[in-house]
Amino acid sequence: MPTEVKRGRFLVIEGGDGVGKTTQVAAVAAALSAVGKSIRATREPGGTELGEQLRALLASDHEIDPIAEALVLLAARAQHCAQVIRPALARGEWVLSDRFEGSFFAYQGYGRGISLADLETLNNFAAGGVRPDLTILLSSQVVGGHRELDGSDRFEGMGEDFQARVEAGYFVLAERHGWEVVDSRGSRSEVTERILAAIERRLGIEE
Amino acid sequence: MPTEVKRGRFLVIEGGDGVGKTTQVAAVAAALSAVGKSIRATREPGGTELGEQLRALLASDHEIDPIAEALVLLAARAQHCAQVIRPALARGEWVLSDRFEGSFFAYQGYGRGISLADLETLNNFAAGGVRPDLTILLSSQVVGGHRELDGSDRFEGMGEDFQARVEAGYFVLAERHGWEVVDSRGSRSEVTERILAAIERRLGIEE
Repeated sequence: MPTEVKRGRFLVIEGGDGVGKTTQVAAVAAALSAVGKSIRATREPGGTELGEQLRALLASDHEIDPIAEALVLLAARAQHCAQVIRPALARGEWVLSDRFEGSFFAYQGYGRGISLADLETLNNFAAGGVRPDLTILLSSQVVGGHRELDGSDRFEGMGEDFQARVEAGYFVLAERHGWEVVDSRGSRSEVTERILAAIERRLGIEE
Repeated sequence: MPTEVKRGRFLVIEGGDGVGKTTQVAAVAAALSAVGKSIRATREPGGTELGEQLRALLASDHEIDPIAEALVLLAARAQHCAQVIRPALARGEWVLSDRFEGSFFAYQGYGRGISLADLETLNNFAAGGVRPDLTILLSSQVVGGHRELDGSDRFEGMGEDFQARVEAGYFVLAERHGWEVVDSRGSRSEVTERILAAIERRLGIEE
């Protein structure tokens, strides 16, 4: 009979800049903590000393090559998985991250135009088997879990605008990988309730 | 009839710490410049503003995960290839680098124990087709181009000692990839002459 492995849950909140991810990570962490979960809130790029230094480098260097940018993000992820996420999950904690691989695929793949197959290979190397149990996409462009204006089948036509490609990419990824899509509009507490409902539905919150 | 592409040559000097690479890169660059070559001397990790910042991070962070370390090195390489090496070669210059992919395979592969197949895949992604025209391994453990004490076939037994694994790895790589192996013992000018002779033999120095 195999030894039972204690393992937590890994939740990720994804979405474009300014959609409220950081606020919601804090609110959801507080709510889960209030029902007795041991919660580790973190973020990418970052979450470790090295990762935060790499994040600062990306913010400061204006002439960074897209491939180098992808590799810096992956280095931050590798350190984050090795030092923070994997040990926390092994202790049975719940980890809640502001961005993870989903933003990487959306920005580097759909935004920068790097091959998604290459990005997946690289991401597997960096994360070393760490995968989210649930990814929640926050978006103001959603109705009933689907994109409001542009169907994800219209992605190919979005060519020129970086942010539009990223946003469309998020919806393609959400459909492909079974993410929960949550409307980011409304009060902070309304959005938090939607996220908690999605977590309850998918993973169960009560022990 | 295809357009003729002007292209320089990419030379790399590899070897363990303290073997004299930096001194020899400067001396060889001066010698090649004296015979009329347009030479760009550079180094890895580094060679760009981002790369030098990444190099400083690696030197300062004491708890870096081996996979994160490999990815930081690759990010520096991607930036170096995109910003410095590829443009210089396209202008017809000769580029001479203190370390490149060879040290990556020796340290991260043979030293840290990361799969060489994975490292090659990652390196191809980072370098985007930039490959050395000639790699020169500087070593004090060489006689007539072969390892003095431990044959590279004895690599498997070197298990415990990191530096010994790296040094043995360099010789395995030299044989596999057809590097020139140069004895690093003797005066600075003797070693420079050996390197220049290897370059002349393999690439020709005179126009």
